[in-house]
Amino acid sequence: MIDCAVPFDRDIVRRVLADLGIDIRTASIREMNAAVTAIERALGVAFIRMEFGVPGLPASPIALEAELRALREQQLAHVYAPFEGLPALKAAGARFWKLFTDVDVPPSCVVPTIGAMQGCFASIALAGQMKGAASTLLCLGPGFPENRLQARMFGVRTETLDFYDLRGNPLIDAIQRRVSRGDVGALLWSSPNNPTWIVLTPAELEGIGRVCTRHDVLAVEDLAYFGMDTREDYSVPGRPPYQPTVMRYTDRAISIVSSSKMFSYAGQRIALTIVAPGLMALQVPALAERFGTATVGRALIDGIIYPNIACVPESAQHGLLALLEAANQGDPSLFEPSRVYAARARVMKPLFLEHGFRLVYDNDLGKPLADGFYFTIAYPGFDQGAALLEELLHYGISAITLNAAGSCRTEGLRACVSMTGEDRFGTLASRLRRFRADHPG
Amino acid sequence: MIDCAVPFDRDIVRRVLADLGIDIRTASIREMNAAVTAIERALGVAFIRMEFGVPGLPASPIALEAELRALREQQLAHVYAPFEGLPALKAAGARFWKLFTDVDVPPSCVVPTIGAMQGCFASIALAGQMKGAASTLLCLGPGFPENRLQARMFGVRTETLDFYDLRGNPLIDAIQRRVSRGDVGALLWSSPNNPTWIVLTPAELEGIGRVCTRHDVLAVEDLAYFGMDTREDYSVPGRPPYQPTVMRYTDRAISIVSSSKMFSYAGQRIALTIVAPGLMALQVPALAERFGTATVGRALIDGIIYPNIACVPESAQHGLLALLEAANQGDPSLFEPSRVYAARARVMKPLFLEHGFRLVYDNDLGKPLADGFYFTIAYPGFDQGAALLEELLHYGISAITLNAAGSCRTEGLRACVSMTGEDRFGTLASRLRRFRADHPG
Repeated sequence: MIDCAVPFDRDIVRRVLADLGIDIRTASIREMNAAVTAIERALGVAFIRMEFGVPGLPASPIALEAELRALREQQLAHVYAPFEGLPALKAAGARFWKLFTDVDVPPSCVVPTIGAMQGCFASIALAGQMKGAASTLLCLGPGFPENRLQARMFGVRTETLDFYDLRGNPLIDAIQRRVSRGDVGALLWSSPNNPTWIVLTPAELEGIGRVCTRHDVLAVEDLAYFGMDTREDYSVPGRPPYQPTVMRYTDRAISIVSSSKMFSYAGQRIALTIVAPGLMALQVPALAERFGTATVGRALIDGIIYPNIACVPESAQHGLLALLEAANQGDPSLFEPSRVYAARARVMKPLFLEHGFRLVYDNDLGKPLADGFYFTIAYPGFDQGAALLEELLHYGISAITLNAAGSCRTEGLRACVSMTGEDRFGTLASRLRRFRADHPG
Repeated sequence: MIDCAVPFDRDIVRRVLADLGIDIRTASIREMNAAVTAIERALGVAFIRMEFGVPGLPASPIALEAELRALREQQLAHVYAPFEGLPALKAAGARFWKLFTDVDVPPSCVVPTIGAMQGCFASIALAGQMKGAASTLLCLGPGFPENRLQARMFGVRTETLDFYDLRGNPLIDAIQRRVSRGDVGALLWSSPNNPTWIVLTPAELEGIGRVCTRHDVLAVEDLAYFGMDTREDYSVPGRPPYQPTVMRYTDRAISIVSSSKMFSYAGQRIALTIVAPGLMALQVPALAERFGTATVGRALIDGIIYPNIACVPESAQHGLLALLEAANQGDPSLFEPSRVYAARARVMKPLFLEHGFRLVYDNDLGKPLADGFYFTIAYPGFDQGAALLEELLHYGISAITLNAAGSCRTEGLRACVSMTGEDRFGTLASRLRRFRADHPG
């Protein structure tokens, strides 16, 4: 692809968007993705694509070889896998959880799902019944936009407390106040956070855990970016520092561990949903109507996951099993994707800042944010993220609005580093330079 | 395993069941499965296992080699597949549908799901909103028990019309009467039917289609056993006879085509949900609240399937693609599993009949039933299926009750032939002989 000069011809961009019927101000992430692909094609350019939060590195051969072996040698393609997950995967998951978070769970508490997406889906289905039919899902925002689609599907009301205004004790106090009304079925968040890359501290997790225990609220922790806060080295099994988890502080925890970004294994769709042992056995009579049992763990497995998909494809279970076993044995290659994304963010984030952008979520409880998968940006003179995004499209840079991620901030964008290799940094710099020259602010 | 004589020691069987805490009268299919495994272990015997409706033949190497090639050569394990399905799979699915049912759909109407389980799940989610919040799911029973768990999860009320009482015009009339009340969101059935192996005729499908069109009711057809009515040879592409489908008669149809039994490809969890073009584009304002859009096809894909699982693992999509392409080219090996199951049923069903059993669902609109995956049995003197099942367990034969399959008949059992190879027919015969001798009826 030849890279034509920025800004691109505005008539062509306008025509492409009009042909697709896409209005950038209201576009979904996937519409953005389609729009950018169409503009690239119309102009013969390659964007700096920061709109999709998808892994940009190949999966480990450890996973692939394990899948191939399982398919070829075990003749498993005609057999339903155990509905609760392969015993070996459950055991390796429990061992992984112990070695990397220092929290003990039995293998029975480790349940594979079709990605963290299904883990969140199932947790939200539970959440919607925990306090009876009027249960509310309380989200710490901003967050993964799809969680709200999941709640909507079950008719579960959602409310959000935003990290922009609330961290530390004020966050815990706000959760406590809201939860004490008695209708909150679950508290849901992602940390490291999509889209801000803030990371909840152990003190915050301890406070959240305390409140959830006291009020019988599910603490649903989306660990889509497990181990990817590279300010600490979480990659050595059985040795501190450990990946923080709310499960250290409450037995009401559901921790959803994705393999998509950590292990760059998104395509084969497998994650682990880890349920605190106390929660697994908890009796919640309100669950029986929808899920056939009052026992939380049985409701999750027999009442939700099983009638949703029967079971997770077994070859992917063998792939994840091999990855977990390698990680448990200390294979240093396993956490390589995190290091690559962090190295990219260490260059790309300063490039934006040097050219007049600022971070929207600009600190992590007073400390600098980690370098990782995402960061958030705004630009002087643009008080609507959609307008900034629309303008950036003419400079060959794409992102999504913070609004799309459920943020209370309207002015900003989420930028993802995953698709931008270091060979594109020069292009990014020159595009940002031109953007700034055209928008002196 | 040494085969000890039937009837087994009643004390041992009783103790095994008591240890597991299982009451045969109320046991689920999976509890039955666990009970039989435990009895086998305690006694060192091998049952004639007819309780699970799972494939008993290996998957085709065509699928496995395609999965291996995709994983190894295309480096796809880190990439999310297109949310609507691989374009090549959608095209091959549309071609398959044309060649084997003679119905035209564009590739956009073919959507892969995590097995027919997720296809039913998504269809029932839709059904529950089609006529607003009070939508009812009308099932033609008996049927796949999990459909009721799916409806329960969404709080969707279900009602059943039973094939035992209703076939032909009386069936259509009964559907018409119930549907005309205006609250039925979908009509759901499986044909060939689990558990009875009856097959709806083209005339019945035409009548159902007419009623569904008139009343804007989804016609959800679970084709878990596509092409497996071996009274006809449906295996030649592009030539009659064609697999009957309700989509020939109504554009309100959702046809769910499983690869699990037809191609013995259950473990990798992939099916096709095929939506009639008119339904894909239909506007149903009541859908918007839960699924974010009034367009049925978008609600299904963007509002249900995507936030449930993101996408179907791509390697399995390549596996199914290869199977469909082979079937479309007329590869005769593809439909071999159906022929094997039919051959087993041709021996096993008469064995039961010779030894005093009768069929519960004993005819197909006056014609003999096809030989296939399932048949239904009862025995003189047992008016409760659970009691018959409990007794049969002492003779090394397992099944499930028709009650568990939502039948209106309480006296019968569902028997599945899939796990019983011809090397076991002698054992089955001798056990039935002894059963009959002990129960002269």
